[in-house]
Amino acid sequence: MSVPGFSFDVLATTGRARAGLLTTPHGTVETPAFMPVGTVGTVKALDPAELRTAGVEMLLANAYHLHLRPGEDLIRALGGLHRFMGWDGPILTDSGGFQVFSLETMRTLDEDGVEFRSHVDGSRRRFTPESVIGLERALGADIIMQFDHVVPGQASHAVARDAAERSVRWLERCQTAFEATGIERRAPPQALFPIVQGGIYPDLRRASARSIATVGDWLGFGIGGLSVGEAKVDMYAMLDVLDAELPRDRPRYLMGVGFPDDLIAGIQRGVDLFDCVAPTRMGRNGTAFTSAGRVNIRRAEMRDDGEPLDPLCDCSTCGRFSRAYLRHLFAADEMLGPRLLSLHNVHFLVSLVRAARATLLAGDPIELNPSLSPERSP
Amino acid sequence: MSVPGFSFDVLATTGRARAGLLTTPHGTVETPAFMPVGTVGTVKALDPAELRTAGVEMLLANAYHLHLRPGEDLIRALGGLHRFMGWDGPILTDSGGFQVFSLETMRTLDEDGVEFRSHVDGSRRRFTPESVIGLERALGADIIMQFDHVVPGQASHAVARDAAERSVRWLERCQTAFEATGIERRAPPQALFPIVQGGIYPDLRRASARSIATVGDWLGFGIGGLSVGEAKVDMYAMLDVLDAELPRDRPRYLMGVGFPDDLIAGIQRGVDLFDCVAPTRMGRNGTAFTSAGRVNIRRAEMRDDGEPLDPLCDCSTCGRFSRAYLRHLFAADEMLGPRLLSLHNVHFLVSLVRAARATLLAGDPIELNPSLSPERSP
Repeated sequence: MSVPGFSFDVLATTGRARAGLLTTPHGTVETPAFMPVGTVGTVKALDPAELRTAGVEMLLANAYHLHLRPGEDLIRALGGLHRFMGWDGPILTDSGGFQVFSLETMRTLDEDGVEFRSHVDGSRRRFTPESVIGLERALGADIIMQFDHVVPGQASHAVARDAAERSVRWLERCQTAFEATGIERRAPPQALFPIVQGGIYPDLRRASARSIATVGDWLGFGIGGLSVGEAKVDMYAMLDVLDAELPRDRPRYLMGVGFPDDLIAGIQRGVDLFDCVAPTRMGRNGTAFTSAGRVNIRRAEMRDDGEPLDPLCDCSTCGRFSRAYLRHLFAADEMLGPRLLSLHNVHFLVSLVRAARATLLAGDPIELNPSLSPERSP
Repeated sequence: MSVPGFSFDVLATTGRARAGLLTTPHGTVETPAFMPVGTVGTVKALDPAELRTAGVEMLLANAYHLHLRPGEDLIRALGGLHRFMGWDGPILTDSGGFQVFSLETMRTLDEDGVEFRSHVDGSRRRFTPESVIGLERALGADIIMQFDHVVPGQASHAVARDAAERSVRWLERCQTAFEATGIERRAPPQALFPIVQGGIYPDLRRASARSIATVGDWLGFGIGGLSVGEAKVDMYAMLDVLDAELPRDRPRYLMGVGFPDDLIAGIQRGVDLFDCVAPTRMGRNGTAFTSAGRVNIRRAEMRDDGEPLDPLCDCSTCGRFSRAYLRHLFAADEMLGPRLLSLHNVHFLVSLVRAARATLLAGDPIELNPSLSPERSP
């Protein structure tokens, strides 16, 4: 299958891990790649120019959040999401499946779609496979995800099976809507990615991947419904199962995953794309990833610490500011604090993945620095 | 009078307005200059690198705020304020006189000093001329202001006179403390500036300036107690009075002033340095200075406005983002909104003052674009 503007090349492999190059209409991404999350069209606290400097090549944005505010019609009228948010590189939009099935507010599900209340203003909304494709078409991201049915990590086999099978039926409707809207569009081409579901059950994951293959030929694959409360060992087992099921010449995107140890574990198991809000969310709360484990900058012992957050880091935060200064910014509730820690965390994850890529290109196996395991964190 | 590292050269004059060059141990500042305010060691929402790009050459920081949090001893131990906040250019510290006399919390004044409660933790604190000089020595700014007695713009002649005379007595004590601490210091030299007080009374302003001249020879002069509630016509009248009293070969710093029309009025009346929290405070609240007057980005009509904040502005906000996007950021309470507007506002004021300087160097008179008058603002 070939779509103008899109390609994926695997440049090197070590075991199941791969280094590749993903090309989209808005540029090329070196894989494995970590995508920061620009929920409502901004990676919280950060400027697109800073993201570039930190080595970010591709962003994720949430169709759900942008639909509620400011709305896809406005974004389309203003030239699409890339122009709206001032990011001319590749963008991927998540479909909103994760959000509508995670909502605290009441929602009702039927075969046609999901009705839910907006968390912004309480208004009633309805997402269907067709409406979500219309939404993602309007936003204009390079890669758009199917609308799927996501269940918690503790879901039973029966619940996970129902959701996985519904996700495949919705994929067919997404594809039909995607092709229908493609005909009338003059905008740059988009790629629709299916999402493999199936909870923590190998048979369901296998069935999901095989059903997806019968629906069409895809430029890449999302692996959803992981990192949603299940044990890490289960997540890794699902990646092991899917490695044999998904075509090796297409990118694999492990959705919502982005802690350092999970990135390494994912790369080792053949994953090419990741996204997670962790670096910015934790940064806003004063927690930094470092080469020596997590650091909480609010702790009292940081008060007079003249060292950088991570002496081994070459980001612009660590090159200029002491832990004492960063702690002061958080203590005084100054916006620069969340900014500098978010920037550091994004840089840290991007650098971690880049280093893994360099290792793969050199033909070496990927290993996790033990200090990056959360169990080691202070 | 000559102090190593400091000089001031007037390069061009038109009427009373001057273009000059102020040299400090941390670099040279083209005057007239606008200093953004880094209250607690950060210009709110902005990174030092952004300030440089916006054309900022010198910052102000508040000794009062830094004393309360994180404390001058910590900053000195970490190498001084420049290093602490990652700004290697010139810094001026305000003495805290304005803050302690503006506090809502109880304070008691006697000839020795002022006792007040910390707005951070309610603890009792005492500022005297000697303690404030010790504080400003520890911070290590290039220019440090005397501890003064500030009264509101509506203060009576008797109240303003009492405060102005006390400020001169405190100046003598500041000078003694400054010279005593200078002997033991190995740090870069600092310049102590006196502050002319006297409310809106020409005779008091004249007397204050003349008394200050009898206390010592100064590298520059602060003009305080203005823009504190008095009528603009009174502020301008005081600048007219002082122009004849202050030596023309020294820089004049109009404290706390920084709206566009006041900057132009000040430059026309011989002022060389300005500071104000307005660009960042207003930016955080969603208001932008523009060449067509003030713009409130939160207004409903901005919702689908694809134009930049100010089409005539060359800042990085206006070069990349639409009003609609900026409004969206504020509506969604995203940190990037305050960042981008603060940056634009700082750039706007710095550019305004730079343009005035270029006009003076060309030998032309300074005139205010009428749209910058607040009466014209929408």
